[in-house]
Amino acid sequence: MPTEPVSLAQALASFKDQWSPRIVTTVNDYDVRVAKVEGEHVWHVHDHTDEFFLVLEGELHIALREPAGERTVVLARGSVFTVPRGTEHKPYARVPTEILLLEPTGTLTVGDHHDEIPSHVDATTGHALT
Amino acid sequence: MPTEPVSLAQALASFKDQWSPRIVTTVNDYDVRVAKVEGEHVWHVHDHTDEFFLVLEGELHIALREPAGERTVVLARGSVFTVPRGTEHKPYARVPTEILLLEPTGTLTVGDHHDEIPSHVDATTGHALT
Repeated sequence: MPTEPVSLAQALASFKDQWSPRIVTTVNDYDVRVAKVEGEHVWHVHDHTDEFFLVLEGELHIALREPAGERTVVLARGSVFTVPRGTEHKPYARVPTEILLLEPTGTLTVGDHHDEIPSHVDATTGHALT
Repeated sequence: MPTEPVSLAQALASFKDQWSPRIVTTVNDYDVRVAKVEGEHVWHVHDHTDEFFLVLEGELHIALREPAGERTVVLARGSVFTVPRGTEHKPYARVPTEILLLEPTGTLTVGDHHDEIPSHVDATTGHALT
C-alpha cells in the first residue's frame, strides 16, 4: 500500500480508459479502486463477495436482478451502495462518471458469470496506478 | 446493508457527535463508516487490521509511529490513506472535517491498545444511522 496519501483526483487524472479500474490502495486483502465510467457495463454476478460503490463525480445507475424482479438504483454524487453477493447487476452511466470501488483483491470486474463482454469493458482484477 | 443508496451528506447531517462513527453500509464483514472529526483523537493501534481513511471535507492529519520514527501524513479533501496494522497512530483535524472509514465489523475506534481515552472520543465499534 502507498506510504503517502493518494489524491483521488490525481489518480483519476492519470488515465483515460473507461471501465478499467485502478487500485489506489489496499486494506487487508481488499482493494480500493477508482474507475471512470460512461455507457453500459455488462450484466454479471459475484458469487462470493459484495461490491461497494461510491460515486465521486457524475451519476451511476446499477440495474439489479433480485428475486422480486429487476430494478435500478441511482447513485448521485456522494452516494454509496453495496451490491450483495449473488445479485446479478449491470452498472451504467449516462454522463461521464467517476467511482470508487471496494472489493476483495483479485475480484474480476466482470464477476464469476457474465454476459458477453463488450469491447469497451476491461475484464481485469484492477490495474496499478502508474 | 441498506437496499437503497445512501447519501453521505445526508448521513453526516443526521448527527453532530465528533469522533463517533456511523455505519452507512457493510461490505462482506467490513463496515463503511462516516465520522465528523475536529481536534485530537487518541494514540492507538489496531494489531490485526489495516484502517482506511478517505477525507470527504476538511483536512485530516494522521500522526504515525513507525520503526523509523514519528511522522504525520496530511490528507486533503478527496485523499485516501491506509494505516497499516500494528502502526500506532493518532488522527487529528485543525478544522471541522468529515471522513469515511473502512474496517472490519467490530473494529473499535480506539484499537486494541490506546492511551487514556479523552472524554470527547467515543470508544465504539460504530453506531447505526438513525
